[in-house]
Amino acid sequence: MDFKEKLSKTIRIVKDFPIEGIVFRDITPILKDIDLFNEIISALADKFKDYQIDKIAAIESRGFLFGMPLSVKLNLPFVPIRKKGKLPAETVQAAYSLEYGAAVIEMHIDALNKGDRVLIVDDLLATGGTVNSAVELIEKLDAKPVAAAFIIELLELSGRKSIKNKEVEISSILQF
Amino acid sequence: MDFKEKLSKTIRIVKDFPIEGIVFRDITPILKDIDLFNEIISALADKFKDYQIDKIAAIESRGFLFGMPLSVKLNLPFVPIRKKGKLPAETVQAAYSLEYGAAVIEMHIDALNKGDRVLIVDDLLATGGTVNSAVELIEKLDAKPVAAAFIIELLELSGRKSIKNKEVEISSILQF
Repeated sequence: MDFKEKLSKTIRIVKDFPIEGIVFRDITPILKDIDLFNEIISALADKFKDYQIDKIAAIESRGFLFGMPLSVKLNLPFVPIRKKGKLPAETVQAAYSLEYGAAVIEMHIDALNKGDRVLIVDDLLATGGTVNSAVELIEKLDAKPVAAAFIIELLELSGRKSIKNKEVEISSILQF
Repeated sequence: MDFKEKLSKTIRIVKDFPIEGIVFRDITPILKDIDLFNEIISALADKFKDYQIDKIAAIESRGFLFGMPLSVKLNLPFVPIRKKGKLPAETVQAAYSLEYGAAVIEMHIDALNKGDRVLIVDDLLATGGTVNSAVELIEKLDAKPVAAAFIIELLELSGRKSIKNKEVEISSILQF
């Protein structure tokens, strides 16, 4: 069984979560299989090792689980993108809407230097609302959102097409 | 400059966050210094490598940043402890109160096996409310909370003394 097949079988389907009609793909079983988890991080590192990335920015909370180990693997600084009110110092903000609900995300203004080449990491690409806001945060700090990497992409929600900045490369390991 | 001195100097003090009177210790500058971050993970791995730990359980969200790389380093399964309503499958729950506010945390019921020896990871030990609840979740699943590891311990809040289960070893890298 190859890596992607194993990954696909390990993700747990939970119906009607968080609300009726949503088919939720639960990544927590991946975290329990640390060999599989390492394969994911290695695959991401292989993909982006020659992209001259300066910093990895991951989105709270599940993005942290993949983004921080990827920072360790690629020996790159890590920047957290968090929900409003969680980062203590001065921030830039961007609003986004989700498949269900809406919110604001933030990044510390000193998280990036002008011109930094940034790789965004999150677990799931759904409608693309969150990643568009992450791109906006990076642009507000005059840095460059080079690519966004996801473990799972939900093709039916066309998140990839919704990304306004067409220079951002969208990459996902598994597509459903 | 030794590791702990560098760590202490890297943590950013933010006054009156999230509310007036709180002196917040911001760990985000640690994440940007990936060599320092690696030293933290190595120190935790060295400390716990002979504890016969079966699983690492980290607390959302900042605990994820340290717990997941520690799982990678020690080659151990990772279990997320999340705020209420975030985990999609069946959970156990425990309520806790914080230095400011109150909440419920959850763990998937299939996250641990009976008898698993579990290491809890979070960034900060304050009053100990969250870690007491994490201990309770592990006990509810008939597993053993062996130790809880923190980057920072706030001594004035006596969190260490508040841990009801006295068999849980409390370990912190920096004390303020």
